[in-house]
Order: sequence, then structure tokens, then C-alpha cells
Amino acid sequence: MAFSTLTSTTFLGSSRIDSASLPSDIRKLSVSSVQISFRSRIPKKLQINAAGSTFGTNFRVTTFGESHGGGVGCIIDGCPPRIPLSEADMQFDLDRRRPGQSRITTPRKETDTCKISSGVSEGLTIGTPIHVFVPNTDERGLDYREMSVAYRPSHADATYDMKYGVRSVQGGGRSSARETIGRVAAGGVAKKILKLYAGTEIFAYVSQVHKVVLPEGLVDHDSLTLDQIESNIARCPDPEYAEKMIATIDAVRGKGDSVGGVVTCIVRNAPRGLGSPVFDKLEAELAKAAMSLPASKGFEIGSGFAGTFLSGSEHNDEFYTDEHGRIRTRTNRSGGIQGGISNGETISMRVAFKPTPAIAMSQHTVTRDKKETELIFRGRFDHCIAPRAVPVVEAMVALVLMDQLMAQYSQCYLFPINSELQEPLIMPRLEAANASV
Amino acid sequence: MAFSTLTSTTFLGSSRIDSASLPSDIRKLSVSSVQISFRSRIPKKLQINAAGSTFGTNFRVTTFGESHGGGVGCIIDGCPPRIPLSEADMQFDLDRRRPGQSRITTPRKETDTCKISSGVSEGLTIGTPIHVFVPNTDERGLDYREMSVAYRPSHADATYDMKYGVRSVQGGGRSSARETIGRVAAGGVAKKILKLYAGTEIFAYVSQVHKVVLPEGLVDHDSLTLDQIESNIARCPDPEYAEKMIATIDAVRGKGDSVGGVVTCIVRNAPRGLGSPVFDKLEAELAKAAMSLPASKGFEIGSGFAGTFLSGSEHNDEFYTDEHGRIRTRTNRSGGIQGGISNGETISMRVAFKPTPAIAMSQHTVTRDKKETELIFRGRFDHCIAPRAVPVVEAMVALVLMDQLMAQYSQCYLFPINSELQEPLIMPRLEAANASV
Amino acid sequence: MAFSTLTSTTFLGSSRIDSASLPSDIRKLSVSSVQISFRSRIPKKLQINAAGSTFGTNFRVTTFGESHGGGVGCIIDGCPPRIPLSEADMQFDLDRRRPGQSRITTPRKETDTCKISSGVSEGLTIGTPIHVFVPNTDERGLDYREMSVAYRPSHADATYDMKYGVRSVQGGGRSSARETIGRVAAGGVAKKILKLYAGTEIFAYVSQVHKVVLPEGLVDHDSLTLDQIESNIARCPDPEYAEKMIATIDAVRGKGDSVGGVVTCIVRNAPRGLGSPVFDKLEAELAKAAMSLPASKGFEIGSGFAGTFLSGSEHNDEFYTDEHGRIRTRTNRSGGIQGGISNGETISMRVAFKPTPAIAMSQHTVTRDKKETELIFRGRFDHCIAPRAVPVVEAMVALVLMDQLMAQYSQCYLFPINSELQEPLIMPRLEAANASV
Amino acid sequence: MAFSTLTSTTFLGSSRIDSASLPSDIRKLSVSSVQISFRSRIPKKLQINAAGSTFGTNFRVTTFGESHGGGVGCIIDGCPPRIPLSEADMQFDLDRRRPGQSRITTPRKETDTCKISSGVSEGLTIGTPIHVFVPNTDERGLDYREMSVAYRPSHADATYDMKYGVRSVQGGGRSSARETIGRVAAGGVAKKILKLYAGTEIFAYVSQVHKVVLPEGLVDHDSLTLDQIESNIARCPDPEYAEKMIATIDAVRGKGDSVGGVVTCIVRNAPRGLGSPVFDKLEAELAKAAMSLPASKGFEIGSGFAGTFLSGSEHNDEFYTDEHGRIRTRTNRSGGIQGGISNGETISMRVAFKPTPAIAMSQHTVTRDKKETELIFRGRFDHCIAPRAVPVVEAMVALVLMDQLMAQYSQCYLFPINSELQEPLIMPRLEAANASV
Repeated sequence: MAFSTLTSTTFLGSSRIDSASLPSDIRKLSVSSVQISFRSRIPKKLQINAAGSTFGTNFRVTTFGESHGGGVGCIIDGCPPRIPLSEADMQFDLDRRRPGQSRITTPRKETDTCKISSGVSEGLTIGTPIHVFVPNTDERGLDYREMSVAYRPSHADATYDMKYGVRSVQGGGRSSARETIGRVAAGGVAKKILKLYAGTEIFAYVSQVHKVVLPEGLVDHDSLTLDQIESNIARCPDPEYAEKMIATIDAVRGKGDSVGGVVTCIVRNAPRGLGSPVFDKLEAELAKAAMSLPASKGFEIGSGFAGTFLSGSEHNDEFYTDEHGRIRTRTNRSGGIQGGISNGETISMRVAFKPTPAIAMSQHTVTRDKKETELIFRGRFDHCIAPRAVPVVEAMVALVLMDQLMAQYSQCYLFPINSELQEPLIMPRLEAANASV
Repeated sequence: MAFSTLTSTTFLGSSRIDSASLPSDIRKLSVSSVQISFRSRIPKKLQINAAGSTFGTNFRVTTFGESHGGGVGCIIDGCPPRIPLSEADMQFDLDRRRPGQSRITTPRKETDTCKISSGVSEGLTIGTPIHVFVPNTDERGLDYREMSVAYRPSHADATYDMKYGVRSVQGGGRSSARETIGRVAAGGVAKKILKLYAGTEIFAYVSQVHKVVLPEGLVDHDSLTLDQIESNIARCPDPEYAEKMIATIDAVRGKGDSVGGVVTCIVRNAPRGLGSPVFDKLEAELAKAAMSLPASKGFEIGSGFAGTFLSGSEHNDEFYTDEHGRIRTRTNRSGGIQGGISNGETISMRVAFKPTPAIAMSQHTVTRDKKETELIFRGRFDHCIAPRAVPVVEAMVALVLMDQLMAQYSQCYLFPINSELQEPLIMPRLEAANASV
Repeated sequence: MAFSTLTSTTFLGSSRIDSASLPSDIRKLSVSSVQISFRSRIPKKLQINAAGSTFGTNFRVTTFGESHGGGVGCIIDGCPPRIPLSEADMQFDLDRRRPGQSRITTPRKETDTCKISSGVSEGLTIGTPIHVFVPNTDERGLDYREMSVAYRPSHADATYDMKYGVRSVQGGGRSSARETIGRVAAGGVAKKILKLYAGTEIFAYVSQVHKVVLPEGLVDHDSLTLDQIESNIARCPDPEYAEKMIATIDAVRGKGDSVGGVVTCIVRNAPRGLGSPVFDKLEAELAKAAMSLPASKGFEIGSGFAGTFLSGSEHNDEFYTDEHGRIRTRTNRSGGIQGGISNGETISMRVAFKPTPAIAMSQHTVTRDKKETELIFRGRFDHCIAPRAVPVVEAMVALVLMDQLMAQYSQCYLFPINSELQEPLIMPRLEAANASV
Repeated sequence: MAFSTLTSTTFLGSSRIDSASLPSDIRKLSVSSVQISFRSRIPKKLQINAAGSTFGTNFRVTTFGESHGGGVGCIIDGCPPRIPLSEADMQFDLDRRRPGQSRITTPRKETDTCKISSGVSEGLTIGTPIHVFVPNTDERGLDYREMSVAYRPSHADATYDMKYGVRSVQGGGRSSARETIGRVAAGGVAKKILKLYAGTEIFAYVSQVHKVVLPEGLVDHDSLTLDQIESNIARCPDPEYAEKMIATIDAVRGKGDSVGGVVTCIVRNAPRGLGSPVFDKLEAELAKAAMSLPASKGFEIGSGFAGTFLSGSEHNDEFYTDEHGRIRTRTNRSGGIQGGISNGETISMRVAFKPTPAIAMSQHTVTRDKKETELIFRGRFDHCIAPRAVPVVEAMVALVLMDQLMAQYSQCYLFPINSELQEPLIMPRLEAANASV
């Protein structure tokens, strides 16, 4: 076993395809492939790989860009027109997500300043795609030299190779947390529209860091404010627990290790009726959104796994009619969703994030050509991703709700509603339009 | 407060729209709506509501039908041609899902016998849509008369009304667990193809019923067999814990109450490289699939929520090269997926199911016209859904893997693979073709 | 060369795969395939192949079933709730489409009576999928025996084999015109909603049969009525030309031959603003819809191919403001669509249908095993498909408009419209609700 | 009537919503909207509108950017990995599409130099999204000042306003032909892969300009070469007719007028089996692709509209077995597609393009605030779009075929093919890999 070096491997190595096992016509193809790969045996300039994808049907977001390269961003297609919008609506959450914001986040220095280059005219959305770009400014390609040949444990290095048979190596490419910038920018637009439309508020916060667990009920979801969340660098609304969390992260930082955590997210004033029966239940869409985030390992809605320890008579949410003649539930173990459809109660969910796999400690691993080696990660990283994941979770929840709101609107509001059973989605909250989101 | 009766409400009640608050042209529309609803004030024949939806992109499944009505089933579009297929391939799992299979399941009597009516010719799939139908035979519409006006707590009754402004009432409609028959039938096809293609095996089992928790590690995922799972009516491979689970369910059954549970699912021999970066990560697709199941409240992949209590150095899965020259991980806290892509290790996940909301105990609730009432559910139901959820979870996992396999094949296998990094998906396991799935 | 017989070929013939050219693991698979195909060498019961697919994003229609088999139909997903709907709304157009309606259509006897089995309760749509079924009653499987081995010229027989490597043979399967029943049923729902919503009227008629070409301008698109179209079996609103068309079809009928034709379709009172820039232009969606119809070979919007002979100064549609202050165009060479978006003028399009390929005349062809043979088609068929294509074209146009209306509504009407530039989509036409569509 | 001036209108004019006709809560919203629009009454900097959309399912292309603004381009998602690719593969067709390439094209000066910024590493695709950017260099915003208030006849100005209730005015935004750059860049990738994979060749050429109609059969589709097409600036492979076409365009150019034209496109060596039954027939996908192009008014496959004048016995394509044992058709009126699926014969289609609506002649029109006016277009434009449309038509055809090839591969080639009926898609043509596309 030896420490890996750059010279010990070719980049693609596809010259060693065992072509004898292939039928003759495919063999011919392989030979040609070989020639191709020879052409670029020695990496001159490591271009970056980028994986972009699209989320949503009506409110469609495609993100692009990667950790290293010109920059990152998104295209938002299907945005309602005539909404006042500027970079400031996105920048607020981008600043909450940005690296280097505090001593407990990765020291990479990025201002993450966004620029809208289409889809907005005269300060209003015009219905056509909104293109948002955030340049990368603090890249350090050299940090990744060693990783180009040794697979970092619990990263995407090995699986990208297994999937594509080829990979670029700098900074994790599309699997980098930097990809989430596009999500946060788009989420900012969705949040603004949801607030304008129905006064919907989406708040996430850190409810666990390693073994520091915020006791259930300590945070009052009816009165929780953004200021409480942002009052400390751990993004835990309880100051006492925030201190403990920060101390925990500081401790592992000293050791070059990392810890996991949990982010709780709530939605107040979510319109009723969002979500579609069967496969596109609201909790299913939220689960997909949350589990598409890097490092997420679990998702719960309402009572979640804890609810399995209850009996039906303990778990059911009884209905009553409140003083405004509105049908409500006395408890909310359903987490604001029943039968896959929002019921107007506060939506609540929890997302588990594993300990950041990037650690500054020696680990056993293998290289691309299957040689065993040891590796110490030398990039910059977060010792607990949860505090910075907070705005990203909020963004994904906003994208789901916005998409479902548009779906609900097009199907169920074309004709006058049945006001006995439904409520108007448009609520008199437009004063919020000029408020910061 | 009074027990609700059928005579106390109109069905739609849309006559009471406050049309004065609407502009004149919309008001006209409302008036017309009113006339329409008057037309059918007294329900003659309660037709059923049905919500069908589609899952998957390449291997697309649309389910149809509901608890009460002619029957249920699915259409499978995009199935590979020339696969040997018959009803038997689906019936095995349908029998595992069917009600009345044991004393701990709902006593509804259904044989759930499926019929393929298109897409298969001469015992082979022909590439065109496969239509599967399962008739309903033991409907009891009358059981639901009371529920037509009172919202059952933690059911979909209220939210369907909120969403659509209209609803049919029998048996829960598309929110009924009976809808999952279509999923299981389609899952049977996916399972068969995955096994033919790569020897992939998907096994789910009950790992928790109420407070009976199967200790981690008691079940060996490398040697787990279907026979072990099917050896008892709780579908827990450990006989001792199975007994405790059955006793627990028997106990709540006596009280008319219900309990929650957890289903664990593993996938052995999953092809490497499945899943797509960013939004369509394999765990995100699996999470959506699982959380689209009725009564599911939580999802975990690999270490899940428990992993958040670890440090990175404890959690990371180190790589090594095994005796066959294959890159493996020594531990599997990742649950077989890294960076959203399968790495060939056993995929493992857990799904939380809340206590069945249908209980034979008096509960407070409200009627459609917002009057408070009490309700005792008189339908037939499961006192713990977990044992019957086992084949349904397997089916959803199979649908996700099949869809991703086809995506992977079309993108990454058009040209000869890079055998240094990728492995052929086709493995010599066709002897399994004639084995039962 | 000889007339084909049933005994001259095996059904699948896959035993003759030249497995020597395959790698060993694949060879194993082939051998297994062989065993499978042997198993069913002699077709006992020719099951039918079915290809189902889905059209639309918001208003999604999946059709199922085939010429021979239990029946055909569709699932409509995403239909707005609270719309009065019954089978009668679909049956009207199904009767216009049905075979055997006149001497110039195929003599197959089908009443094509449809049955709604879900998604409608108390005479109102409930927002969940609408399942429509039409049983087949006049199947004659034996007519197709010869075709099972000989490829009918210009049919889908050969290409289904080329695509899937397996095929069932009766009645053309999913390529049969009988599949369009599901489209017509769904189109009936879309037509009704469009009429309720905006007074939109969709009329198609036959404008050419073989060399009988209705002169442009003879039909006044502003005053055209359904009665005019339905006044004769050719569905040409001009009685004189209708006579000529009928005589033409009678003449080829006598010879066992067939002729082509053109269907013109117009849309009056289409809402403005439908269609999306770039790839999803309204004319692009209409073109796809029309060209997905069996036997269609061409599509034109507005001036179409004839417009290429004009100069820009002759072709452009100048704007003016009409007496109601509405921006209009003086001419309509654009066909009601500019920049991919409807402008409120009458949408007009033409669809070319080739001569029915089924003819009762001897033709040279080959069998599945590549032997040359002669074939005389003995099934029942239309000698000109255009008259029966009329309601099918209308249906596809309705599906496109309904889908785009919902898309437009969700994106551009969430917030109050800009009434200087946009017009309310809801127009005071609900009196039409009770009229026949 | 007067010539429009910039001072005669406000930009949005939404202040004049007749809010009295709205219900009170909506009225509140309108008032707020008014305030918003006032905020930006005087356009300081006319930002550009952009409409981006996505084409394809497996091989997905999203274009972005507009005539005026930083630039245009596309994101290609789902591209097979390990394909040699560089900017040169796209630049060839971009040069064929670029303005200013000859005296008969718009004099706008753009080099249209493209830059790949992700998805390619070491000269090979890596399976992740490919981002392509082409900067705009010769914008002239001032040319469009007058158009900002007067609707250009037969442009998208009015309909964008009708759809969105807001619009930016420079250069046509997303409806500009400049958007097609992203299509051509992506098409270059698809063309290259199709050629590598199956030797597929896609050639389009101009077959009509105004009244100069290339006689059918003059161009031999079996021997047609790219050099023949590129031998003259009209892109008509027949030199004599090319001269006449060029003379025609020169003549209208002198008058400031424009003319229409037709582009014919053929595909040689298209794999058999592409296209899906029912809604996604290959000709339906091609029709949508072609009709999504700016200025297209008609589409024909094979015999097209002319085929309607034939009888079935004249139109049918009889089958025979050729000297290589391959099933072929003697004629090809089907245009290479039967039953919606390619049969291996040459695919042929024709696309009609209307006369460019931009003409340097005075036209009557109205302004945004509905005042009648006259307008002379002062931008730069093509007098006949057909010659520059040639590479764009090819690109759209390539995108359709590539997407369908991947769909076919994932469904029908997972398991060994039935070589009696199917043919291997991989053909020994990889020597083409290093040839220019």
C-alpha cells in the first residue's frame, strides 16, 4: 500500500478494455475508443464536470454549474409574470447559504453575488425564463490533485466513475454543495410568490447537532421568527442549545472531524389543497426534494418515526370548527398533510444530514486503478453542514409548494370555487409584497 | 353536539356560495353551478371517486380504480419486449398484499386475482402497454354511510373536499390502500426483469410493530431469504420477535385500536450506477416512492437519522478492493448509495407507517357542514398496516430501480462501456428466469 | 413466390438467432429465449398487443385497448372538478366517429357505447381520474389470419416487428384506428370545458376527398355550424361538393381501392395567450396532436404551404382596433397564432390523410421470415378515412387547447391580470353549459 | 392616425385596470400592482425577456438567451458519456446558421463562436450536462425603439403582451430567430452521436423560394451530399435552381420585401424501430420539432399533402427482400415511417416557412395602448429565411432521433435482440467518428 500519486494512473485508462470478450462489431468500436482516449492521456487542463437537472413541472428549475468553473446558477421556467423581483429577493438567502459566513462554516471565501440576466424587465417578471448566475471567485484547483486518483470515502467519486465510465475530478463537480446555490436562488423567487399569494412563511432551523438534541416543544412553531433563527451562527432558535451546538462543532473542528445534524422545517399559512393523490402526494414531493440534497439520509413528516410508537387513538388528529368557522385539527401529528394533501395546519418536517464526509484525517481507500492507499482530505469543508443547510431546505420546500400551488390553481380554480368546502387561495396579504422575504 | 345523520346535510351544499362578493360575470357562473348541484341533491347511487397517477419516466406505471367500484389495476407503459410474463408473476405478491390473508389483517374478503388483458402475447411481453385488472368482489358500501358526512380523523376525507370542492365518499376512493394493488402488480413485472437482468433481489420485512423493535443486526442482510420473511404472518424474519409483534397486534385488535410500525427494505445485487446527479438522486426517487404510500410518515436510507449521532470518521465507508478485483466498501452506512448513485453494496432503507387511522373507537370530529359530531368507524381495517405493506414497499423500490436501470442503460450503455470503471449490467443469471420471483 | 400460409412460419422464429456472434454470457441468454419461444410455437389464443400512451401535461389523457380484445378507452387525469359531466357528453362525438355509421365507412358494427366508471360523482367531475371504457362487440379475429405472417403494405406490421422483435397480429393492435375512441371520449370532456369556460367552439370538416377539392372561401368560418357539417355523410359543409366526395368514395369502394383526403379544423373563441414560447408553441403542439393520428401525412396552420408563395407584404396580418376596443388583425394568414401564442382570431389548420392502406386488391409483400408473397386484405376498412377523422381531429385540438389553457391559467392568472393587455379568460357564457356540445 | 412615438404611452399602463369590477380582496391586490408599475414608469434600461424551454425526454435540451442581452446557448442533459466532443462539432453548423454569412442573409454581424463550459473533460463527454454559450456581439438596441410601442404585424409582440400582460421589447426576445443557436449547438452533438452510432446522416436543403420550386426527383436522395448543399448560398443542391432562388431573393431585397420558402430534410441510415406507438409517433415528434421553429407554417412527411390525391393502390409501399436479406419497400411514399416507427428507408419531410414578417415597408398597425399607427421596420432581417433555416431543421430532426434512439435502446435492447426481426443498432461505422459531422 502506498500514498497515491498523480503519476501512478492514466486518467481514463480505457485502453485496457478487455476487448477479446466482445463481439467483433463492438470490438471494432472499442478499438476506436482506445484511440480516442490515447489522444488525451495526460490531462492538460482539468475541465470541470457539471450535472444539471430539472425540478418541478409548472414551476421548473434547472440548475447548472459546479464547484470549480466559471460559476453556478439556475434557469426558472414558468414563473408567473408581473411579480416584482430583483436580485435582492435571492441574495438574502444566498447570504445565509454562503461559505465563510462564520467560523463554523467552510472557510472558502465567496460573496455569492447573484445576477439576473433574463426574464425580468423594469423590475417585474415577464413570464419568460429567469436566468440567474453566481460566479465562482475562490477556486483552488490544486487542493484536489490527490483526490483525482484516490476515491474519497463516502463521496461521489467512485459512483460517478461507475456510472459514467469517465469523470472530472475537481471539487466534486455537480455533487458539490455549491450546486445548491441555484436551488436557493430559485427558492427565493418561490418564497416571495408564496408570501405574496397566501402569506405563506417557510422557516427551517437546526434542531440537532451530533448529540445535542433540541427537545421537542421548546420552539413554538406558531411564533417562530426568522430573527430567532438568524440570531446565532448555529441557526438554532433556542440560544442555550445554540451555544451547545456551536461548542460541539468547534470541538470537532479542532480534531479535523465532522458531525451530523438535523434540520426541522415548518410552513405556516400553506394554502389548503396542495398535493395530488396517489404518487404525487405532497409529503412524497417534499421527501424527494429533501432527499435530493447532498448528505441527507432521512426525512420525516409530522410525527415521523416517533409516531410509530403510538396507537391510532393516540395519533389521530381530531377535527373541530374554530371561531372563524374554519375546520381545524386539535393536534397536528399529521404534520399539516392528510391523504397527501395540505389541510391548512402548519406543515412540519425533519431532515437528517450525515456527518460531512470530508474530514482532515487519514482514511483507507483505493485509487481509480484499484490500488489501496491512504488519503487525507485537504479541501475546505464544513464540520457540520446543518447550519448552512437551513436556507437550502427552505428553498426546496418552497419549490415544491410553488409547483403544487400552480398545479392546484390550474386544475381546481378554473371555475368559481365551492366556498363551502374550499377557501380562496388569494388572501389579503399583499402588503407583504414590499416587505423583505 | 349530535351523531351525524345522512339527512342533516346536502351533498355539495354549493347553493350557499356567497355570490354577492363576486364580480357580476362570475356571479352568473355561480348561479349556474347552483342549479347543477340542486339537480342531484339526493345521492341516488354513490359513484366512487378515483385518482390515478403515473410513476416513472421510462418504465411508467399508471394505477386506476378504488376501494369501491368495479376493480383496480394498472397500465405499465414502456416495458421491455420479449420478457416471459404471466399473471403468476404478479399474483405471488398480490397474495402477500391481499386482505384477509391472516387474522391480523383486515377481514375484507378479496382473492385479488389479476388478469393481464394487453401487452402480452404468447407468454411474452410485446413492448406495448400491459393492462392489469383486479376486480373488487367484497364491497360493502353501506359501511360508509355515516362517513359521508363526518370527516374521519387523519383520513383524506377533509382534504379531498378542501382540494376539489367536491368528493365521493365510499371507501376512501383513491386514498384507499386498495389502490396499491396496481403498484404491486407492476412491481411484480419490475422485480422479474431486475432479477433476469442482474440477479437483483428486493426483500422487505417488518422491523418494528408499536414498541416491539427488532434489534439492528439480528437479521443478516446477506443471507436473508423470502422464506424467512414469509414464515410468519407478521413478516418479521426473526421468529421470536415475530411472535411479540403478532401478540401486540392481537392486543390492540381486541380494543378496536391500531398501532404503527416500520418496514425495512434491502436490495441485493443492485446494478452499480443507478440514479442521476442533483434532483433525481436514487435515494430521492426511493424517498418519493416510499412516501407516496398511504400512512407512511418517514424514510431513511442507510444510517438514516441514527447516523446524525456519529462523527465523520465513524460514519465514512472506507473503500477496499475485494478478491475479485471489485471496489467495495468495508462498512455500508451509505446504504448502497453515494452521491445519489448506487455503488453495488446492498441498498437498505426504512419506512415508518403511522397507526392505521381507522379505529373502532369513538372520536370527535366535524361534518361537511362544519357541525361537531362523534364518529365510530364501522368499516374493515388493518390494526397494523406494516405486514401488508411489505410487498408494497418492495414493489415501489422495484419500480424506481427499473426506471433508473432503463435511464442508465439509454444514457451510459449506448456505446461500449469503460470496463476499467464500469461493469457490464448484463450478468449471467438467466437461469433465474424460470424461477419464481 | 407463393401465397402465404399459416404453416409456413413459426410465430417468433427467434430460434434462429445467430448466437455464435454473441459473447458467451449473452449467448446463454439467447438460448433461454429460444426455449421460451419454442414453448409457444403454435399460437393457441392470439392475445392482442396494446400500446398506450399519454398526451398532455396538465390535462393528461392515457388511452388503452386495441382493435381486438375486451375494449378500448382512456383515463383522463387532472380534469377540473365540479364540471357537470355524463356519458352523453362523450357519446355524441363517439357516434360521429363510430364505424358502420354510413355506407361510406367500414361495415364493422360497433355501437361504441361508453361508460364512465370513476372520477364522476352525482353528475359532477370530482377532480380525480375519469376512466372511460367502450367494449368491443364485433371482433372478427379470423379475418386477420393471413396477415399474421405477411406484412400488409404501408401498415405498422413490419415496423412493430422491427421495433419490438415480437408482435401480436390481430387487427393492427394499438395502431388500429380503434385506439382513437379514447381520444374522442377525452376530447368530448375538453370540448365541454372549453365551451363552458370561454365559449370556445371547435369544428372540423372534410375539405378534400381524392381530387375533389373544396375551393378556399366557400365555407364561411365565421358562420360555420355543426349542423352544416353533419348534414351529409361526407362531413363537407357544402352540399354540392359533399355529393361529389360521396360519389368518389362510392366509386373506389366498388373497386376495393381507397382514396386520401384533407380535414380542415377551425377554432372560434379560442382564449388569447395559449401556447408557450420556443418549443411548446401552440402550432407545434397542434402539429404533434394531428400527426399522431393514424394515416396523417401533413399539417398546415393558417396559410400553410400556400403562404410560401406570397411576399411578406402580402402575407402579414395588419392590426387594427375594433369597435369594442379589442386589438384584431384584418387578415388571418397567421391562422390565429403568432409567435406560438393564440391571438384570439379563428385558429385554422388542415390535416392530410393518406389513402387507407387497407385495400381489397392483391399486393406484393413479404412474410415475417422474409419470403415474398401476395396478399389480399380481407378485413373491414374505410375507403376514405377523412369523414370519420373529423371528430378525431376536433378531439385532438380540444386536448391541446385544454392543456394549454390550464398551463396559461396556472402561470399567468395566479395574480390579477393586466387588463390593459390581457383579457379575462372567464367569459359570460355559462348558459352554454346545458347546451349540447 | 399618427406615427407612434415613445412618449405616447406608459410601459405597462396597468394603472388603468378597472378595479371597480373586481371583488374587494382582488381590488386590493390591483391597487398594489398599480403602485408597482408606477415605480418603473420610465424605462431606464430595457432588460431583455428570455423564454427558455426544454425539448426531449432522454436527450434533453434547454435553450436560453435572446436577441439582445449577453448571449444565447443551451444546456444538454442526459448526453451519453465518453463521446469525443469539442466546440468544433457545434461550430460547423453554427457557421451555416450565422447571420451575415452571405448577401442574402441578415447583415447583422455575429461570429457566433460557441464555448462549452461544462460536461466535457479531456475532450470527452462525461455524462453530466453540457453547457454551451454564444455571446452576442452586434446588438443594436436603438433599432427597436419604435417597435416598443407599435405591434409589428405577424410578429410575437402582441401575443406576448396578451399572454403575460407585460413584455420587454428589444429584438423580439425569445421569439427571435437568435434563440435557434442553442438548438443548432445541441443538434451538432446529436448529429455526431447518431453518425457514430449508426452512420445516420441528416441533410436539409432549400427546395422552394417563393415561386421557384425545385421539381420533385431532381435531387437524388440516395447520393445527396453536404457539399452539394453548401455549394451555393441558397443551399439548393441544384445549381440552376439555386441561381433562380438567389435572383428571387435579390429582387425582393431591393424592394425591402421578403418571400417564403420550403426546406426539405432527409435522413439516411436512420435506425429501424424509432418512434413510439400512439401519441409519440416519430412523425408526430418530427412535426412538433419542425413547427416549433419560428416562421414555420406547414409540415409534411413522405407523400404529404400530395399523397391525398392518390388511391391506396397507387400509394402503398410494397415490401420485398433485398439482396442482403433485408426487408425493404420498393417505393417510399411513407417517408421512412410506418405506424409511427422508422422502417429503415430514407426519412423525408418538408417544412414550409412563411415570408419573413419583418419588411422595410410601411404597414398599418396599432400601439400597445390601441392607437392606430404606421410602422416601418428598421431592424436587420433575412429576406428569405429558408437558406439559414437549413441547419436548424437538421438540428431539430437530430434532437428527435437522438431522443427516440435512447428511448428505443432502453426499452428494446436491455436484453439480446430478436435478430430475425430486429437489427443491431450498433453498426460498424466508427471510422466516421473522426470525420467531420
